[in-house]
Amino acid sequence: MAMGAGSWMTEVRACVERRLEEYFAAKRRDPAADGPEGTLLIDAVEGLTMRGGKRLRAALVAAGLRAVDEAVAIERMTSVGAAVELLQTYLLIHDDWMDQDDQRRGGQAVHAALRDRLGDTHRGASVAVLAGDMANAYAWELLADASFPNVSGGAAFHYFAVVQQDVLFGQAMDILGASDVDRMQRLKTASYTTRGPLLLGALLGGATDAQRRALADFAEPLGIAFQLRDDLLGTFGDRALLGKPVGNDLRAGKRTSLLVAAERLATDPGVLAPVTRVLGRRDADDEHVRAAAVALEECGARQAVETRLAEYVRAAERVLHDAPFSMLGRAWLEHLVSSMTRRSD
Amino acid sequence: MAMGAGSWMTEVRACVERRLEEYFAAKRRDPAADGPEGTLLIDAVEGLTMRGGKRLRAALVAAGLRAVDEAVAIERMTSVGAAVELLQTYLLIHDDWMDQDDQRRGGQAVHAALRDRLGDTHRGASVAVLAGDMANAYAWELLADASFPNVSGGAAFHYFAVVQQDVLFGQAMDILGASDVDRMQRLKTASYTTRGPLLLGALLGGATDAQRRALADFAEPLGIAFQLRDDLLGTFGDRALLGKPVGNDLRAGKRTSLLVAAERLATDPGVLAPVTRVLGRRDADDEHVRAAAVALEECGARQAVETRLAEYVRAAERVLHDAPFSMLGRAWLEHLVSSMTRRSD
Repeated sequence: MAMGAGSWMTEVRACVERRLEEYFAAKRRDPAADGPEGTLLIDAVEGLTMRGGKRLRAALVAAGLRAVDEAVAIERMTSVGAAVELLQTYLLIHDDWMDQDDQRRGGQAVHAALRDRLGDTHRGASVAVLAGDMANAYAWELLADASFPNVSGGAAFHYFAVVQQDVLFGQAMDILGASDVDRMQRLKTASYTTRGPLLLGALLGGATDAQRRALADFAEPLGIAFQLRDDLLGTFGDRALLGKPVGNDLRAGKRTSLLVAAERLATDPGVLAPVTRVLGRRDADDEHVRAAAVALEECGARQAVETRLAEYVRAAERVLHDAPFSMLGRAWLEHLVSSMTRRSD
Repeated sequence: MAMGAGSWMTEVRACVERRLEEYFAAKRRDPAADGPEGTLLIDAVEGLTMRGGKRLRAALVAAGLRAVDEAVAIERMTSVGAAVELLQTYLLIHDDWMDQDDQRRGGQAVHAALRDRLGDTHRGASVAVLAGDMANAYAWELLADASFPNVSGGAAFHYFAVVQQDVLFGQAMDILGASDVDRMQRLKTASYTTRGPLLLGALLGGATDAQRRALADFAEPLGIAFQLRDDLLGTFGDRALLGKPVGNDLRAGKRTSLLVAAERLATDPGVLAPVTRVLGRRDADDEHVRAAAVALEECGARQAVETRLAEYVRAAERVLHDAPFSMLGRAWLEHLVSSMTRRSD
């Protein structure tokens, strides 16, 4: 990768952060938000949104737009980029409460902060769910403020609604422990992390049907690869990069790709005893979690997931190779594949 | 009121119910919904939506459209009518969980039914919040499928997003016990119950600015009157008509208009002792709740709220008198004032 190949991501991030800051400032001036209750909700939404890091989803909107229009000013995607970041805020707030994950993005999850602030678990959870609902209403407003010049009326809105429906079905599968983990992750993550942002960017640029199809074909393996990397980082990663404790997937008893691989590979159930000991145990200590990680490595599950990850990365790159995209758009998308699936990020 | 003056409401209800039935049937065929988790979510959303009764909000969409276009086929409002009914489903599901109200529309509230079904309070609440989120995503999809021929791109979507923001601020005020009850009810109820549906209907018909202003001026007193009637029914109503136990506002400790009036009127605090005894007590029995209702009547709070209700009804009727609406639209709106603020409904 050439030096400076990612400077467009820095530019996109700056645009979107500025738009978000302006938007929150305007919302604080809304008469409906006047008073301590309004401030509490906006603080919760803004607080989590603004410690959002790399703005990958906004970058995907930009790359989707660039793939179908090499020349358009990148500012055209700013409102949609801000909308997908607020969609992420909405989903994280609700998910963290459902999963009882108290840490997020290097700080307290919203429901945990509000529980402590209000001194009441149910009231904290209620205001957190409202804050998530508000983030979603903000996302829709930002989407409504974008201009989609070459597509018919409600197409972008219809698409955004369907993306949300997919995520919610995936989250229900996750909560209820559905056995088809690949399908769950496709619905829960690929939909709004890769396909949604890429196609909204493409709609901004008036994409052809062939371009939309190619972006959807690209989004699928990229989204799965991103989720596999997330599963690996959740167990073998670095807490500082992760923004929450390592091992929380195990403690929550989540059926991640690592667990599915381990069940397939470990012929002797004794090998997975350290995993079983922590699985679904909220109070498991770090030492036992580390022992579980060692067991997942020794039974070959880590290697199996890394191999699958590499295959999905190659599949995404293959789609790019033949896709009817602009040169610059293709370069941006290649950069994103690397950025979203590297081990260290 | 002439015989048959409300037959248009029957027609609107039939259109919207048919649209909702078709919509849910289509959603069940969506591959993303395949499996028990998808069925559980759709059952929850459809179950509560279809026992929805009079479809007042859909009728307001129809009357808003009719006010600005005397001749248009009423089917033009069907998708928007279905959207506002699903918005209502979304808000009821989240509110009932927040308020811990286990009864709604003559049956179990969604979080209560899912708690019993899944045998776990948190999991039931999580799937209920997801079902509310799904109802909202459905509402947006239905809105995106409507056609707004004479308004610029995102106007209806922007407006729907702002209505939701108002409701959420109002709900935060309600949960956190804000002292300004009038403002809370304006944000929480008038926004999505009257103003939102009326103005979406008007946008469908390409309303003039003067017509939109008049509808907003009409929506405000009508929304407050509707809420005052709701407060009265919640304490003095009939359980069968209410669809949930009488006295739940008291048991939940809600600052309703009745309570605010009672605090103002009762110079001797002893008069309100029966109210204080049940206020915020989930386990208060029916006999004590009835005694509280008697105290609210004897201190003059009931009469004070009924007087205010009548004033707001007159205010709404005054706006109608001078508004630049079609003759038929005005008649429909008059009918709605009566239907939404009568004691017995």
